[in-house]
Amino acid sequence: MDKKPLILITNDDGITAPGINALIEVMKTLGDVIVVAPNSPQSGMGHAITLDATLHVARVNENAYSCSGTPADCVKLGIRELSNRRPDLCVSGINHGSNASINVIYSGTMSAALEAGIEGIPAIGFSLLDYNWTANFDAAKPFVKKITQNVLTHGLPKGTVLNVNIPNVKQNAIKGIKVCRQAKGNWEETFDKRENPLGKPYYWLSGKFVNLDENKNDTDLWALANNYIAVVPTLFDLTAHEQIKKIKHLEH
Amino acid sequence: MDKKPLILITNDDGITAPGINALIEVMKTLGDVIVVAPNSPQSGMGHAITLDATLHVARVNENAYSCSGTPADCVKLGIRELSNRRPDLCVSGINHGSNASINVIYSGTMSAALEAGIEGIPAIGFSLLDYNWTANFDAAKPFVKKITQNVLTHGLPKGTVLNVNIPNVKQNAIKGIKVCRQAKGNWEETFDKRENPLGKPYYWLSGKFVNLDENKNDTDLWALANNYIAVVPTLFDLTAHEQIKKIKHLEH
Repeated sequence: MDKKPLILITNDDGITAPGINALIEVMKTLGDVIVVAPNSPQSGMGHAITLDATLHVARVNENAYSCSGTPADCVKLGIRELSNRRPDLCVSGINHGSNASINVIYSGTMSAALEAGIEGIPAIGFSLLDYNWTANFDAAKPFVKKITQNVLTHGLPKGTVLNVNIPNVKQNAIKGIKVCRQAKGNWEETFDKRENPLGKPYYWLSGKFVNLDENKNDTDLWALANNYIAVVPTLFDLTAHEQIKKIKHLEH
Repeated sequence: MDKKPLILITNDDGITAPGINALIEVMKTLGDVIVVAPNSPQSGMGHAITLDATLHVARVNENAYSCSGTPADCVKLGIRELSNRRPDLCVSGINHGSNASINVIYSGTMSAALEAGIEGIPAIGFSLLDYNWTANFDAAKPFVKKITQNVLTHGLPKGTVLNVNIPNVKQNAIKGIKVCRQAKGNWEETFDKRENPLGKPYYWLSGKFVNLDENKNDTDLWALANNYIAVVPTLFDLTAHEQIKKIKHLEH
């Protein structure tokens, strides 16, 4: 009998989040699991790593560890220190909230998946379009299972990890899965300037998302708006290969 | 007479770092400057943003602000709140240490440049291959000026920012500028496990870089090893466009 695959599970909402518990539940039906997740929420951490501070790890149960570091730290620790064999797959999430479009670059969920990809391990980040702590992950679970099974069977093209976003609708309203590209978009930030009780100013970062690919039907935002699950193959080689020739004049 | 370009300057080593002061000195010869930089070192912050905490800004002088946030926060604040007109260019650095190869993804320096790129502003991250606080930026300065002038004149291809790494050698040893790709590589981490005085374990992240593109002469690591300045056009659309077709089977 084949050995079961070892699946490393992490997230950026922290080890107590309902989203990671939904993910653990699904992954236990597909393989052996090891959980290494932050001990506190790490949303918006991007690809941060801990260079100037110590990392603390607590064993939560036989197969689960909480860590003081970032999602990328958790993956590094999971692969190099806490697993007794090399993981066959890394899954991150299920994030409470979207990581579609440009949000991928700010995402702790996806930084964990990208970190595993850099280490040569197939990886998937899952996100549900519901920011609430009480989000319901039931409709997402069968799709999470299907996509994970596919990746365990077929692997992924070298140099890519999957960014999977799931619409927040009932299961029978989900129309299927679309492989698509990241929509172009950005945040038009506003800074809410306030004064503290001593009269000193401070800011809250706020803003509104702008979809620069409105009406294009090959993007993740289009798929999600039309009740499809959006799957975007995502890179960690950031070179704009096609632009190298166009800026050769910089050499002269 | 044309108005001088407005150049937004930031970094990830903090506003007191010698590297940003070298950059400010060069930029003042090319345009009007506004400096918005972290009030403490932010190395390894990747593309983190501050979502769950307030941001504090202190005016350092007429054109300079220090900020409690990450490099990406500094750029957002600089563009949206602190500049009196839209910056024409954003430069980040000069980083104390390399951001070549896979280091680009962990880099606070480059996250600032990418953030400006997302906002549609041409942007360049500069790094010198010397981690020391007392690094000497003199040899770098004329090249920083030349590259910046080129970008002010010609702009950059849409969707790309520049990652510029500078070898740590004397000026007359620098052979020139190479436009190249990010070398494939990763960190083989080791975790140095120690015990605190109460017997509780903790870890230091450590490791050794592995160049997976050894002997290839079109990479940033090759250029740097051969005393060239490495310029890599860098993306913020992370879609692996060429892989979309290859994973369409996920839809079924």
